[in-house]
Amino acid sequence: MPRYALKIEYLGAPFAGWQRQKDLPSVQGAVESALARLQPGEHTIAAAGRTDAGVHALGQVAHCDLLRDWDPFRLSEALNHHLKPAPVAITACARVAGDWHARFSAIERQYLFRILMRRAPATHDAGQVWRINHRLDVAAMQAGADRLVGRHDFTTFRSSICQAASPLKTLDELRIEAVDSFTGPEVHFHVRARSFLHNQVRSFVGTLERVGAGAWTPDDVGAALAARDRAACGPVCPPQGLYLARVGYPADPFA
Amino acid sequence: MPRYALKIEYLGAPFAGWQRQKDLPSVQGAVESALARLQPGEHTIAAAGRTDAGVHALGQVAHCDLLRDWDPFRLSEALNHHLKPAPVAITACARVAGDWHARFSAIERQYLFRILMRRAPATHDAGQVWRINHRLDVAAMQAGADRLVGRHDFTTFRSSICQAASPLKTLDELRIEAVDSFTGPEVHFHVRARSFLHNQVRSFVGTLERVGAGAWTPDDVGAALAARDRAACGPVCPPQGLYLARVGYPADPFA
Repeated sequence: MPRYALKIEYLGAPFAGWQRQKDLPSVQGAVESALARLQPGEHTIAAAGRTDAGVHALGQVAHCDLLRDWDPFRLSEALNHHLKPAPVAITACARVAGDWHARFSAIERQYLFRILMRRAPATHDAGQVWRINHRLDVAAMQAGADRLVGRHDFTTFRSSICQAASPLKTLDELRIEAVDSFTGPEVHFHVRARSFLHNQVRSFVGTLERVGAGAWTPDDVGAALAARDRAACGPVCPPQGLYLARVGYPADPFA
Repeated sequence: MPRYALKIEYLGAPFAGWQRQKDLPSVQGAVESALARLQPGEHTIAAAGRTDAGVHALGQVAHCDLLRDWDPFRLSEALNHHLKPAPVAITACARVAGDWHARFSAIERQYLFRILMRRAPATHDAGQVWRINHRLDVAAMQAGADRLVGRHDFTTFRSSICQAASPLKTLDELRIEAVDSFTGPEVHFHVRARSFLHNQVRSFVGTLERVGAGAWTPDDVGAALAARDRAACGPVCPPQGLYLARVGYPADPFA
């Protein structure tokens, strides 16, 4: 059966997360339903990252197996037609080898987290940013973030329900950037690693926000990491500002 | 009665436009209802620009008169509280002189129009961009736009229901910019004038899109302007990509 890689963009708000769930809307369920319109029957697609409820994607990647040959462009157009009006879109599609796997072939995940700093409620970006009332010190947050980059035991920054076999991970990048958006000053966190623990990015951002607000020092972040204790983590931030931005493979299937 | 200037940001989608209408939701109606929660009774606010249905604002300006003195910051916070969950936010508030008028004191309006160029439906920016399937030639569009800058009879680019006394207007700026957004390549039109005719920006953008697509030449835009004939206009583009970005006053009331 021919296998296809799908690059998928979605808004997290209407969904209980990526993963298919009985009686709850999910992104996986939406894409599988669209596939069933093209080829009747059951479909089970695998994705590079199982995003939580409220978390968005700019470049989620999944793969599907279909009985007949499809032109990849036609397949993406047909899926987009059937996905409407859900805020889910196939932005690229490619034929891949039968042993290519969206999750197991991936060698890198990149997340973006957006904080909007202003008093007024978000309008254009409601549900797509974490809005906070105060300004953040980007340089202090970056100094704290620098303590986290590299290979570490990230027990502190791991949800208690995380199912990963080991808390040892290598964080390749945690870059923090001040950005002026249409609706006010934002801070963007760019986070990159081969793989992540459950809630790791939200644990990083919630902790670094405390540094940006002046409640923690950059050294406190290092101490929290060294503690290897979930209780040492700062508050976990809400999901609305989080985006699965990109998934990396040894060779880009969409190139 | 003390008078207050309000800077207002909103999403156009849920509203029949700025202007209050019987039995239809409007931005003016939403703000007036919020004011009535602070001071019972009728409120009538005046705005710098009456945006059409589906048109957004990043910096609409209106003024209101209230019986008692309000701290401007408290007033904006109270209005934002009562505006929830509508996608309308007061982003600035200032006490102004009794003869200051949001519409008549304004000396400049600036609009932004966003086109997203990609095949897949918009997700994060659905309803906030005009999505088109093809790429546009920005240099050609700018050459066409340059024919429109200056003082002209803009009859060609004016809706047949426009109520302005004269079609003579001075266009101060029409700058076109290629922008990479999270979700794909965009083109932004920055349009600035003292005042505009009805549908003037959407008539400009719809016509210039034809130039960007190669169907019109830049000279065709000059000829359409010279024709002073509504029938010479290109197609009027949809409202979803249009934002009232900024209103200028001799002295910025929010500075």
